[in-house]
Amino acid sequence: MKPSIPKGTRDFSPSEVNLRNFVKEKIKSTFEIFGFLPIETPSFEKLDVIMGKYGDDGEKLIFKILSNGEKLSKADLDSLDKKKYSRFANSISEKALRYDLTVPFSRYVVQHQNDLTFPFKRYQLQNVWRADRPQFGRFQEFLQCDADIVGSVSLWQEIELCMLCDKIIQDLNINSVSLRINNRKILFGFSKLLGFENRFNEFTLILDKLDKINIDGVINELTNKNFTTAKIKILESFLSIKGTNNFKLDKIKEAFVDSKINTEGLEELNFIIDTIEEIGGLESIDLKFDLSLARGLSYYTGTIFELVISSFPEIGSIGGGGRYDNLTASFGKNDFSGVGISIGFERLMMVLDKFKLFPKEVNGDVEVLIANFGSDTATICNSILKMIRSKGVKSEFYPYNAKLKKQLSYANSKKIKHVILIGDQEVKSKEFILKSMEDGTQKKHKISQLESILFSKLKR
Amino acid sequence: MKPSIPKGTRDFSPSEVNLRNFVKEKIKSTFEIFGFLPIETPSFEKLDVIMGKYGDDGEKLIFKILSNGEKLSKADLDSLDKKKYSRFANSISEKALRYDLTVPFSRYVVQHQNDLTFPFKRYQLQNVWRADRPQFGRFQEFLQCDADIVGSVSLWQEIELCMLCDKIIQDLNINSVSLRINNRKILFGFSKLLGFENRFNEFTLILDKLDKINIDGVINELTNKNFTTAKIKILESFLSIKGTNNFKLDKIKEAFVDSKINTEGLEELNFIIDTIEEIGGLESIDLKFDLSLARGLSYYTGTIFELVISSFPEIGSIGGGGRYDNLTASFGKNDFSGVGISIGFERLMMVLDKFKLFPKEVNGDVEVLIANFGSDTATICNSILKMIRSKGVKSEFYPYNAKLKKQLSYANSKKIKHVILIGDQEVKSKEFILKSMEDGTQKKHKISQLESILFSKLKR
Repeated sequence: MKPSIPKGTRDFSPSEVNLRNFVKEKIKSTFEIFGFLPIETPSFEKLDVIMGKYGDDGEKLIFKILSNGEKLSKADLDSLDKKKYSRFANSISEKALRYDLTVPFSRYVVQHQNDLTFPFKRYQLQNVWRADRPQFGRFQEFLQCDADIVGSVSLWQEIELCMLCDKIIQDLNINSVSLRINNRKILFGFSKLLGFENRFNEFTLILDKLDKINIDGVINELTNKNFTTAKIKILESFLSIKGTNNFKLDKIKEAFVDSKINTEGLEELNFIIDTIEEIGGLESIDLKFDLSLARGLSYYTGTIFELVISSFPEIGSIGGGGRYDNLTASFGKNDFSGVGISIGFERLMMVLDKFKLFPKEVNGDVEVLIANFGSDTATICNSILKMIRSKGVKSEFYPYNAKLKKQLSYANSKKIKHVILIGDQEVKSKEFILKSMEDGTQKKHKISQLESILFSKLKR
Repeated sequence: MKPSIPKGTRDFSPSEVNLRNFVKEKIKSTFEIFGFLPIETPSFEKLDVIMGKYGDDGEKLIFKILSNGEKLSKADLDSLDKKKYSRFANSISEKALRYDLTVPFSRYVVQHQNDLTFPFKRYQLQNVWRADRPQFGRFQEFLQCDADIVGSVSLWQEIELCMLCDKIIQDLNINSVSLRINNRKILFGFSKLLGFENRFNEFTLILDKLDKINIDGVINELTNKNFTTAKIKILESFLSIKGTNNFKLDKIKEAFVDSKINTEGLEELNFIIDTIEEIGGLESIDLKFDLSLARGLSYYTGTIFELVISSFPEIGSIGGGGRYDNLTASFGKNDFSGVGISIGFERLMMVLDKFKLFPKEVNGDVEVLIANFGSDTATICNSILKMIRSKGVKSEFYPYNAKLKKQLSYANSKKIKHVILIGDQEVKSKEFILKSMEDGTQKKHKISQLESILFSKLKR
């Protein structure tokens, strides 16, 4: 029986780890350049921290950790009997794996508020876990890269986040990326005007599907769900407006001058879009006001974003975020407004792979192999090994006196470019042979010159 | 109600993350210099991969993940009723969090054997989870740093691992570290000679406590557990031998010439100790043969190591490892002998902290704050921000037009050393003020000279 791993999880080989680390480092350094500081939180949180934050659909995907030993005697068998599985699970579990980074961050901010300087800008690159059905680009364990600012209502934070996305996309040379932007206040004002406000979450979840099922699909679904037909027609007319961001915003403004909450959302968006224009615009991404952007998570209250790549539609969004005014309230603290962006690392990797955007110099290969010719030459080989390692050369000594062919084949399959050969004869003459695995050539040199010759080959 | 995290877990603040990353990078780069390549495995494994590998005591500490929804209907209530909690848990769980990195690595090697070049040298820096009672230096989530070689029985691998430990300890400037070394074959031969072989695991677990409870404690415990008194006296005489590694090895050799398995272990140790001596010895750690070293995990079959720091006895071991011949057999592959070392990252951090060995230059602070004087000056401020960020300067723009005092106090508490001030007047005269938060001085300069002046202050 061949061993395997749980569905939706992955093993990463050395070359995959090296590529992932390369991209992680890019994102990390951009976050730092923008003034964000790193934090890390535990992989699991207490159940009450995680539960009640992600809606019913999200909550089903949370991985709970089974309590140990005696504690299992508290199992709520009545709930099990009534097939209330979630309640049963909660009776034998006290903690759950992180579902995202935003909720643990909110918990962190409230818990450590006295030690933090506000506005507090943090980034976090950690795994999250979701019991989702595995499919293209969707895993049960995946890396998220989040940057959030908490404790400031300034819209400059939103502007900073737009510029941050721009810089990441620019540094990675990705084309045809848009940043869709909207504001939940506009959506709420809209739903009020259409008389949908009692079904706001349902309305936004349908609206959010527009980029997948088009306007017709959204209209159909709203009709099927018994939203008022006349009102749906009004919505359709607004969703169909084409033009610049400001043209679209102006059209909506004209129609809804009376709605205070709507006006607030429009003014916020106007400020963000105009200011970005004034300070020179974005370099690599297209900022697009999109009335249909809704974002699934219910904790957003203001600006919402989504990074999409039009040349790879199967992958949809490669990031998203928004402003949340009330998330820390659930942890007993009311006045922290937060705003953040989450980069979908796994999808970004798929984009970089598809468009062959990984740079050539991402290489973690071992550089030098010292061949093993037995114990008589081991001492000199190991003193050379020690010397080149002290200079940072990735190198190894073949572990036993195998046939040279075998040792060279090892170097070859590990893509080690240089092999140092020192047999009995070379020990006597104080020489070494440097063999290139790239072109097969080999040449004898004095050991006293080893450092300079090897380092020129290694281009250091 | 103040939110909190599960016991035995930790939040890491920005300065803690930066220190941890510094040490991680040191270990990672040393692993790479020694020719190890990185892999990563999922945080959770299938239950049958994890179970049955760590002995009864270890198994109790495994975190199992609760199955979702319907699957809970399979709960084995009969076992629950009989208080067979582990069996009950297994009926509603299919996977568990990693307990160490060695077992997932063995699973990885068997699963991917056709894609690997052997001997396969891998390193892995990932978290592991244990439901241990939290105490000084012991956590429920912690980082392990492992380097293993699989597919080679050469004792040069053991020698490489000794040198690897030496390099890590040397690079981190840690003093008074020993590498205790023993061989499970010697222990087995010994237990056979004493007639303890049927209680081998029990015997080794008691022996392993010697550094905590001394010889007398070990003798007492063996006596209490009804090991034969005459044989315990023989053991005592061997544990009391003082002298060099070779002296101790010779004494044992004399007494046990007949035991084949014992002789093998002695010869292996002799080769390792002598060869390390021949190639120049270790620089920063003391290699000590120690007959009482046993290692708790039952999968070790040959050489075993433990890194200990005598100047910080509360912390005990800061790393350990050994050779395991049969671990991949449980995954259906017999002929992969492995040997590895695991660095106890959390304890290493405590050592570095206690002896103040963190270098001063580990610093992730934001370097420059640009003060915010409102919308009229925002454009010029943001073009400067863009320019310095493009050169890699960690910098931010204060998010709103607050009183200068407040903005400076923000810079101060975030340890930002330089503040750029551009008010209306400076916009007109094309100047900027550079204020040092270290000495409070400030000076006006031409904006055209900003780059050169700022970069000289930042020492780039």
